[in-house]
Amino acid sequence: MTVTTVNQFRVEEDALGNVQVPGEHLWGAQTQRSHMNFPIGVERFRWGRPVLRALGILKKCAALANGELGQLPKEKVDLIVRAAQEVIDGRWDDEFPLVVFQTGSGTQTNMNANEVIANRAIEIAGGVVGSKKPIHPNDDVNHSQSSNDTFPTAMHIATVATIEDKLFPTLSSLRNVLEEKSQHYSDVVMVGRTHLQDATPLTLGQLISGWVAQIDQAIDSIRQSLPGVYALAIGGTAVGTGLNADPHFGEVAARRIAEETGHPFVSAPNKFAALSAHDGMVSVSGALRTLAGALMKIANDVRWYACGPRAGFGELNIPGNEPGSSIMPGKINPTQCEALTMVAVQVFGNDHAVAFAGSQGNFQLNVYKPVMLHNVLTSIELLADASRSFCDRCAIGIEPNEKRIKEHLDNSLMLVTALNPYIGYEKAAKISLTAYHEDLSLREAALKLGFLTAEQFDSWVRPQDMTHPLTGNS
Amino acid sequence: MTVTTVNQFRVEEDALGNVQVPGEHLWGAQTQRSHMNFPIGVERFRWGRPVLRALGILKKCAALANGELGQLPKEKVDLIVRAAQEVIDGRWDDEFPLVVFQTGSGTQTNMNANEVIANRAIEIAGGVVGSKKPIHPNDDVNHSQSSNDTFPTAMHIATVATIEDKLFPTLSSLRNVLEEKSQHYSDVVMVGRTHLQDATPLTLGQLISGWVAQIDQAIDSIRQSLPGVYALAIGGTAVGTGLNADPHFGEVAARRIAEETGHPFVSAPNKFAALSAHDGMVSVSGALRTLAGALMKIANDVRWYACGPRAGFGELNIPGNEPGSSIMPGKINPTQCEALTMVAVQVFGNDHAVAFAGSQGNFQLNVYKPVMLHNVLTSIELLADASRSFCDRCAIGIEPNEKRIKEHLDNSLMLVTALNPYIGYEKAAKISLTAYHEDLSLREAALKLGFLTAEQFDSWVRPQDMTHPLTGNS
Amino acid sequence: MTVTTVNQFRVEEDALGNVQVPGEHLWGAQTQRSHMNFPIGVERFRWGRPVLRALGILKKCAALANGELGQLPKEKVDLIVRAAQEVIDGRWDDEFPLVVFQTGSGTQTNMNANEVIANRAIEIAGGVVGSKKPIHPNDDVNHSQSSNDTFPTAMHIATVATIEDKLFPTLSSLRNVLEEKSQHYSDVVMVGRTHLQDATPLTLGQLISGWVAQIDQAIDSIRQSLPGVYALAIGGTAVGTGLNADPHFGEVAARRIAEETGHPFVSAPNKFAALSAHDGMVSVSGALRTLAGALMKIANDVRWYACGPRAGFGELNIPGNEPGSSIMPGKINPTQCEALTMVAVQVFGNDHAVAFAGSQGNFQLNVYKPVMLHNVLTSIELLADASRSFCDRCAIGIEPNEKRIKEHLDNSLMLVTALNPYIGYEKAAKISLTAYHEDLSLREAALKLGFLTAEQFDSWVRPQDMTHPLTGNS
Amino acid sequence: MTVTTVNQFRVEEDALGNVQVPGEHLWGAQTQRSHMNFPIGVERFRWGRPVLRALGILKKCAALANGELGQLPKEKVDLIVRAAQEVIDGRWDDEFPLVVFQTGSGTQTNMNANEVIANRAIEIAGGVVGSKKPIHPNDDVNHSQSSNDTFPTAMHIATVATIEDKLFPTLSSLRNVLEEKSQHYSDVVMVGRTHLQDATPLTLGQLISGWVAQIDQAIDSIRQSLPGVYALAIGGTAVGTGLNADPHFGEVAARRIAEETGHPFVSAPNKFAALSAHDGMVSVSGALRTLAGALMKIANDVRWYACGPRAGFGELNIPGNEPGSSIMPGKINPTQCEALTMVAVQVFGNDHAVAFAGSQGNFQLNVYKPVMLHNVLTSIELLADASRSFCDRCAIGIEPNEKRIKEHLDNSLMLVTALNPYIGYEKAAKISLTAYHEDLSLREAALKLGFLTAEQFDSWVRPQDMTHPLTGNS
Repeated sequence: MTVTTVNQFRVEEDALGNVQVPGEHLWGAQTQRSHMNFPIGVERFRWGRPVLRALGILKKCAALANGELGQLPKEKVDLIVRAAQEVIDGRWDDEFPLVVFQTGSGTQTNMNANEVIANRAIEIAGGVVGSKKPIHPNDDVNHSQSSNDTFPTAMHIATVATIEDKLFPTLSSLRNVLEEKSQHYSDVVMVGRTHLQDATPLTLGQLISGWVAQIDQAIDSIRQSLPGVYALAIGGTAVGTGLNADPHFGEVAARRIAEETGHPFVSAPNKFAALSAHDGMVSVSGALRTLAGALMKIANDVRWYACGPRAGFGELNIPGNEPGSSIMPGKINPTQCEALTMVAVQVFGNDHAVAFAGSQGNFQLNVYKPVMLHNVLTSIELLADASRSFCDRCAIGIEPNEKRIKEHLDNSLMLVTALNPYIGYEKAAKISLTAYHEDLSLREAALKLGFLTAEQFDSWVRPQDMTHPLTGNS
Repeated sequence: MTVTTVNQFRVEEDALGNVQVPGEHLWGAQTQRSHMNFPIGVERFRWGRPVLRALGILKKCAALANGELGQLPKEKVDLIVRAAQEVIDGRWDDEFPLVVFQTGSGTQTNMNANEVIANRAIEIAGGVVGSKKPIHPNDDVNHSQSSNDTFPTAMHIATVATIEDKLFPTLSSLRNVLEEKSQHYSDVVMVGRTHLQDATPLTLGQLISGWVAQIDQAIDSIRQSLPGVYALAIGGTAVGTGLNADPHFGEVAARRIAEETGHPFVSAPNKFAALSAHDGMVSVSGALRTLAGALMKIANDVRWYACGPRAGFGELNIPGNEPGSSIMPGKINPTQCEALTMVAVQVFGNDHAVAFAGSQGNFQLNVYKPVMLHNVLTSIELLADASRSFCDRCAIGIEPNEKRIKEHLDNSLMLVTALNPYIGYEKAAKISLTAYHEDLSLREAALKLGFLTAEQFDSWVRPQDMTHPLTGNS
Repeated sequence: MTVTTVNQFRVEEDALGNVQVPGEHLWGAQTQRSHMNFPIGVERFRWGRPVLRALGILKKCAALANGELGQLPKEKVDLIVRAAQEVIDGRWDDEFPLVVFQTGSGTQTNMNANEVIANRAIEIAGGVVGSKKPIHPNDDVNHSQSSNDTFPTAMHIATVATIEDKLFPTLSSLRNVLEEKSQHYSDVVMVGRTHLQDATPLTLGQLISGWVAQIDQAIDSIRQSLPGVYALAIGGTAVGTGLNADPHFGEVAARRIAEETGHPFVSAPNKFAALSAHDGMVSVSGALRTLAGALMKIANDVRWYACGPRAGFGELNIPGNEPGSSIMPGKINPTQCEALTMVAVQVFGNDHAVAFAGSQGNFQLNVYKPVMLHNVLTSIELLADASRSFCDRCAIGIEPNEKRIKEHLDNSLMLVTALNPYIGYEKAAKISLTAYHEDLSLREAALKLGFLTAEQFDSWVRPQDMTHPLTGNS
Repeated sequence: MTVTTVNQFRVEEDALGNVQVPGEHLWGAQTQRSHMNFPIGVERFRWGRPVLRALGILKKCAALANGELGQLPKEKVDLIVRAAQEVIDGRWDDEFPLVVFQTGSGTQTNMNANEVIANRAIEIAGGVVGSKKPIHPNDDVNHSQSSNDTFPTAMHIATVATIEDKLFPTLSSLRNVLEEKSQHYSDVVMVGRTHLQDATPLTLGQLISGWVAQIDQAIDSIRQSLPGVYALAIGGTAVGTGLNADPHFGEVAARRIAEETGHPFVSAPNKFAALSAHDGMVSVSGALRTLAGALMKIANDVRWYACGPRAGFGELNIPGNEPGSSIMPGKINPTQCEALTMVAVQVFGNDHAVAFAGSQGNFQLNVYKPVMLHNVLTSIELLADASRSFCDRCAIGIEPNEKRIKEHLDNSLMLVTALNPYIGYEKAAKISLTAYHEDLSLREAALKLGFLTAEQFDSWVRPQDMTHPLTGNS
């Protein structure tokens, strides 16, 4: 094959014929075709760092596995590994122009990686870019592989890495900041609220402990979903049979990937499921959605407790990070809460797309791989970014407005619940309703109805005692 | 064909052979097969009145159309019409034992209608039930029809009827009750709240007018979606070509249905789309979802404004219909709001199923018809029931707590916005923030900062003036 | 208190006053109020067996825990246990008239249980129904409890029981039937298909093994979600503090429930989260959705492979259980697949409602409990019913159409992939495209292009070898 | 106020104090705060051209309205208009660094527009950037406005413009291309398929006419949703009362926007709904989802009909735009269909986020505005891009494989349906089932069973006649 560079273009060839590729780029014919054929969402839907890094890891480890199994000579392995390492390190991100909405197996992005790594390896070897010598994108870089097993493998690598490296540290910070608040305010007794109505009291520490528990459960839930994405499709090649790959290739490649990343990746036990379904990704997405729902509840609580400053609950103060209104002077808004709840609804939407896509496999392939990956990664990154921002700019500054808290507590009618064991539910209800309808304090109503003495009231109705810490609650 | 009734069973025959049918029932072989073959969700997913009525209307009008076009002799038409009318009237509801989760074209429910009407017509004619003489379920009752065009026709009839007869009257009542409240409380000035933070004032009348506007828009939006379901598949028969039907059958049957129901049904202009897609149902479902979202906002507003009685906003009082707690005596909760918001999330879920199902057609048929119909009807009925209950047991009793409203208004810092045109946004912001941080009233802060005189303050900051009714707002 | 029965009514009293209750029923004032106040979806949304049984278990175990901790005298405990056992056994299902759309804490259904058990216990004791003596619905049956902790406890009991008793056995049957098919057909070589296009071959055994793997993963995923629902809210009472309950009540009650049910229920470590969030239910729902997606893929595969009989793939035969068309004679349709995929989209919709509801908690309570429970249970039951039906009436009868399978395999162009290791991707592509465009067999095209000899072709292109079973695949 | 530029920074002041702003940028203090406070999704979630253009249009028209109503002097109006026009024209896109996940009212993006336009106007006037003289971002550019009414106004402008300018032209092209195909192939008779099973015949023209009808209905449905977004919030200011704005400002500004854009924008009749709910956006999103579902059905049909080349339906040929596989040589895949169906699931996900967000308003504001806008615009753009790509690279090249089509048709058993009117459903079924089970042709089976003569068969079973074009179908 002759490689001709006419003006700024290089002519590359693939199975369908010649393609002009911009001379300054390392990508080849198939990348160029996809770049021209899928002008869809180009501003927002190009693959980002986590995917490109995962492709580099995959191609490096595949080359190492091919070397280990005697499928590729050492010189080729070394060249591919060097070029792939540069992809891992982010040196060639501009060489990946393709978007999510392409072929549903991610073939074109797999070929993009094959082409860039091949051409870069050729450069390193002093060869002619585009000549496919000494490294061929299909026969060497893609050796023992198909897009159908490499792309889902890259999906899993990118998903695990982003969760472990970005999301979990952020969630830990947030739960730690809240845990500390929970400890710190374990003595601040507040009105409880159920059905948005005044209820029996609890401490601010207890209240916040509920948020911490939700985050901890969400982390657990995500962690429990990870085994499904530790299992890698690699080794299945085109339809799951592993045609054209050494029977041990999947296991060796998975071991190499585990070593490279430090995460416990393994070869998926059933490759037919691994190519034609992505239930592991759907499960991860579901767990991210649970986290989103938990963060929504927490952020909503924060902004409702901070509602005011004069005509709302006003029981928590949060940092005022910016002017809140372009027309109302001096207004401060719970903007970090708002950003976080908007992220939560976005994650719900992303999850919807993932689950829908995951159900649409046919025969030996699910061709919604790219859209599933995009949405899972976007959810992870948004949840991490927004949790970090919420932690650093809001949660860390939460403080009780103790004056307001005490006013509310002192007025609460639901302290009457403490009387149930002494006078029964029905008499207690009469006291509460009398106080409400006649605008009395509970104590006044109780004495007026003659159900108990002032001394009894004072010894039975003690808000602090009513918070009644259970073992295991802060 | 001989019809044998052994003990309590009657033997009926269909294309696959003989089937034992319970002797006391009018249904036939195919209904019996489906009844045995689909024991799925039998407690909650049997077809209800609106579907059975729609099937009756459909079969009656099809018979009339066949008569009009000379496809069936008058005697047969009369017998079918009499039997179908009894189905319309609800006399034979127990003869429809089938559930949603059956064949995806609704064939078995169409055959259920054919069989019941045929056997009932035979009874009327004095024939032997199960003999298919003088009325045959396929050749007569289903004449010129296929399940593929009848079932979607019944879907549309049931959907339109339930919206018009049940949902719209309820929504009108609710919007009228709220409209009256809006007029009645047009002078009650309240603190506005944006971002859950105190904002510039508005009247309770204005506030409620926003709810009325949302309901009105939702009604409009549902109404705009109806043309898609006025268009009937009837006439398309098996794949849309109208095979075995007179070319005018669709139009005549649609006209008959329009006359029978009083709704402007027409023959769908493209039968291929009418069988293989149900975008009209998806659009209706989307409009119901918009309504659900609007009702959720309204119900949430009501319960937040009613939050208290002592430690919340407490600006609206709502009826206390029942004791609110099994442990907290005297507690009253916004239960109608809760039921309505739960209905809203159910409708969101139903809509999700409808839209998903609607996208899954292949070739000449979408085989998710029953699940689409079930979810659309359930949404309509729940929205109607819950709106009615909310209207009668909550909305009608909404009253302002004027004392609390005034306290909040008097304390509000956002009245400062009225000063923007006089002293500019920045000085106004200084006043507001000073009042907030030093716990002063706005007036005190303004005078302390020396930005204006007491007289100026009093003449510029007038909450009632700040509600500033626009043309077109109540 | 005097209990008056006027005509057919009994007058019962609660905190808001007197209520007329139908004389023949055991329920009391609060049930009656709810029955009248929430006429919403009454046909489809009454609580079913699993919820009533769970309430019985809960009340029985709470009474036993109260006895164990000295909170109720033995005689009261015994009476409550006897009455609750009857509820467990289904004797009083007609005494639970309430629906999903009520107060969002399920208070009214908790009170329904309290009232029925109290009145039944009174009956057993020979007392006057409605007299609240010797057993009071609140002070005795609900002792140490609040709806806010009992209802979510019942949610978890019902969810776990239905999954373990109904769903898991069904899924096991289905995966076993398929596993057997997979073993049985391990030698049937078929065309693989990716992107809906012919691809390299695999065996029918391998193909079905992918389905089995999906079901196994889905079972695992559901199982992994169960710890979140093993944790019970009981002991938290009104807001999570456990007010009016012995500090050990939660643990003792959870232990009793574990003993009663045989499932490893425990007291939730954080009661504030347990009342105000239901992330455990959201996680279960997400896992059910993953199962639904897997079943959708499987059912779709089955019906596509069975597509025909003459003009489709036609590679699998499935049982013909009923006539398929009211107009096309002799048509047989994949109706069990259709029912199963309709169930799948319903589960997606239910899950949507659950996740949305789960995100909407405020302060110390999430008031979407009933709608969450309803949707989770409906999903479990539909998945179990439809999987059972699909297993027994479709999967068990799947058979290969070996003649058709062989025709397709012999014609497949993608067998060319076996040549990659010998002649490289590019030459192999030329062979394939030549065969396609010139309507040749692969062998003819290969020889025509002169890339290899006939002997080489025959020794390299062997479909059976190309299925290349990997370790771990059947 | 003194404006100090230290090194590369300029110090700008807002209500909360001083902020360092990069000296080379036109944005001011509040933009800078937001830029630092919301590092969330910065790679994918910056506002794009349609939003920035809409903000420019809004600010230009607001200035013109202020001028017309005597609220701002002509010189200020002119300066603002000139600067805003440059924003409209795209000159200052780099001055808008903010992302979707910010304050939920879009306040910071509104202030970004105010600040950039003010500073640019100051530059034009020869003033000192950051001095707020002669143009103040709040008092002049934001005159008569609040973020709460401007941001939703910009939402509507951007939505309408993108639909009209980008989506509708693309959909028209696609439906026209398909309409032409439908006409062109009106004589190609094919096997119909219902339940994925062979059914009665139709023409390719009829088949494609169903797709055209779906697109036409989707366009109608989107168009019907537009009135909800023609209604603009402008004039409502902070809470809907129009405080600090001339009572005519909303109408004048809306008229100006209508003139500027050529779309029939009007002032929303109820401003309280317009700020606190975005049901109009939810409706548009729902209509886009209906379109997505329709496109999914169409793209699925295309790829299933093109399934092959040897072992599938193979009835349609579509363009092969690129090599399909990195391992299977010569494979061609329906990649444009895959991209389009992936876009469809993305739109479903986006719509989910929009509807969820739309339900979450409280009191006088919905604070999910930015996430709603982002998702609606993304859906519009993706649908337009993918439809265009599908039209130009797939639909336009669809051709029937007439040989395959004829083979399938000749073998079809469902041609038997044509016999119903002559011999009845039951005998016809016997013929069909006999042919199926004994592997005969229909004709052979019919004669064998003796139900009709060869002459009768030939004159009654004519596939072309069975397509039976209805009036109104192509």
